[in-house]
Amino acid sequence: MKIAVDAMGGDYAPGVCIEGAAQALYDFPDIELVIVGHEKKLAYYLERYGIARHSRISVVHAETVVEMREPSTTSIRGKKDSSITVCAKLLKEGKVDAMASPGHTGAIVAATKVLVRTLPGVDRAALITSLPNINGRFLQIDAGANTDCTPLNLVQFALMAEVFASCLMNIESPRIGLLSVGGEAGKGNDLTKETYKILSQMPINFVGNVEGNTIFEGAADILVSDGFSGNVLLKTSEGLAKLLIHWLKEVLSRNPVRVTGAILAKNAFKELKMYGDASEFGGAPLLGLNGICIIGHGSSNPKAVRNAIRVAAECHNLKLNEKIVQRLQECQPFLQQLK
Amino acid sequence: MKIAVDAMGGDYAPGVCIEGAAQALYDFPDIELVIVGHEKKLAYYLERYGIARHSRISVVHAETVVEMREPSTTSIRGKKDSSITVCAKLLKEGKVDAMASPGHTGAIVAATKVLVRTLPGVDRAALITSLPNINGRFLQIDAGANTDCTPLNLVQFALMAEVFASCLMNIESPRIGLLSVGGEAGKGNDLTKETYKILSQMPINFVGNVEGNTIFEGAADILVSDGFSGNVLLKTSEGLAKLLIHWLKEVLSRNPVRVTGAILAKNAFKELKMYGDASEFGGAPLLGLNGICIIGHGSSNPKAVRNAIRVAAECHNLKLNEKIVQRLQECQPFLQQLK
Repeated sequence: MKIAVDAMGGDYAPGVCIEGAAQALYDFPDIELVIVGHEKKLAYYLERYGIARHSRISVVHAETVVEMREPSTTSIRGKKDSSITVCAKLLKEGKVDAMASPGHTGAIVAATKVLVRTLPGVDRAALITSLPNINGRFLQIDAGANTDCTPLNLVQFALMAEVFASCLMNIESPRIGLLSVGGEAGKGNDLTKETYKILSQMPINFVGNVEGNTIFEGAADILVSDGFSGNVLLKTSEGLAKLLIHWLKEVLSRNPVRVTGAILAKNAFKELKMYGDASEFGGAPLLGLNGICIIGHGSSNPKAVRNAIRVAAECHNLKLNEKIVQRLQECQPFLQQLK
Repeated sequence: MKIAVDAMGGDYAPGVCIEGAAQALYDFPDIELVIVGHEKKLAYYLERYGIARHSRISVVHAETVVEMREPSTTSIRGKKDSSITVCAKLLKEGKVDAMASPGHTGAIVAATKVLVRTLPGVDRAALITSLPNINGRFLQIDAGANTDCTPLNLVQFALMAEVFASCLMNIESPRIGLLSVGGEAGKGNDLTKETYKILSQMPINFVGNVEGNTIFEGAADILVSDGFSGNVLLKTSEGLAKLLIHWLKEVLSRNPVRVTGAILAKNAFKELKMYGDASEFGGAPLLGLNGICIIGHGSSNPKAVRNAIRVAAECHNLKLNEKIVQRLQECQPFLQQLK
């Protein structure tokens, strides 16, 4: 199995990407990697992490990089030789089985949308991610690939996430919740009210509307939303967690007694940090694409890159995409109502 | 000045409401209160908090209560004798200058929409609330009154919040941000892209798109959004803060050394809790209504009820509504583009 790794993506590229790739090569003996990026810039790190002449590695040159501040369409208009676009082309042409990139999310979505296209029966690909809750973690779809959605999109997202959860996370009959502003059926906006109607008729474990607070209490295994409000939820969680950690440090450093207390409890704070660690999950798969694409966080560490590669391999090995197509076909009569 | 208090609203009614009303009577000698609720149920608490025969209090009977699980339209269809509906009628008829209720938000929005109507030039009333950030607090509008919005609604919300911030919070030229999924101008959904265009032309301190994470770093004084994504942000913050506190307790109680550390630092944790305390703010004013209406959190404590009454009085005294009408008139040429 061959996986293209965009080594130029993310805040700490290419070092972090290549270190993560080296870990993946070591840990997963079935995987071949195609490192995509500027050859000259990659050379140093490939040497440094001892994989320059590794038998399961090859390098494909990409002249440019889509910078985080550039618009999403850069990957398909301005910079057709960017590492993201080159990865998407390799995937399109079947030269690799999957791609992984911690680069510009919008640019990856745009490039794969145009080049790789969606699976039969899927209108839009959606980002699925994982967030912690009181019992463990829950899946969230769409985390930001589609800012404007129809009820049909949301129903497809729910089904794709259901397949992902049962296939990759071994959750049997995952509880699917719809992100809304109240628990009752009638609460929500036009989009969620229409989506609710269809989801409640379908042969899935639909638990109804779920709110931004109850989801952290474990109200559902999968939280379905449009990419705008899903992204708001994701970034609000990030921002508030940072703020609370900042406050905690502030109040604990205010006098010597508290500092002593904090030193005694320091392992507790280390554990607390681990609860929120997303690097185990690795990256957000872009579900519904006619190919496998995992998007990592811009601030991915080597472990996150390694795990994004692992998730890509798992999606391929477990035939995730075939199962998505099959599940959508089974549910065609329900989806038809929305067309 | 007369303020109607819905004593039947919220999780701990009517005790908490009447205790809060008693505090307000004591603290604000200019305020007269009209306590609305089931007379027999109120009597015990009015005696208990020593205000049964207070010279600045009167009681208006309301036979029923809109329960939290009931639909929003209950206040204008099923239960026209509910405490919320009675308050809204008193406000409509000019028998009170303002109302405050920690009851069913949707039901209050519906009742005031039908009975009290909006100010001249305002299409929709919106809930404004306050959340903590690294520097202090920021205002958020709409916190959940309107689940589907137009760009015109959002621009009006921005202007109403601007008046509120300068008038009640003494923030001169408040920085107005638009909730979106990326900082750049082109990022967002159809609604925010269109709203961005207008806001960026207007004579306001518009700081552009703000994300769910950067808002907690102090990116803006006012965060404008539709009521759906605004409510997602609000409830996600609540839910995640609860989860982090839960985790903190868990990791700190795991062994005797940590417990000792936690005891030494216990005042730090008390302070941490205060950072998130919303009872100082009191309640969320429903801006744009042709009357003053403050909606408290369902779990309001007496201090929050007292402060909701305080905010209602301030809005009245500072002629907030007159100033909103005036500001919207000044900006008419910009709003006209969206009609």
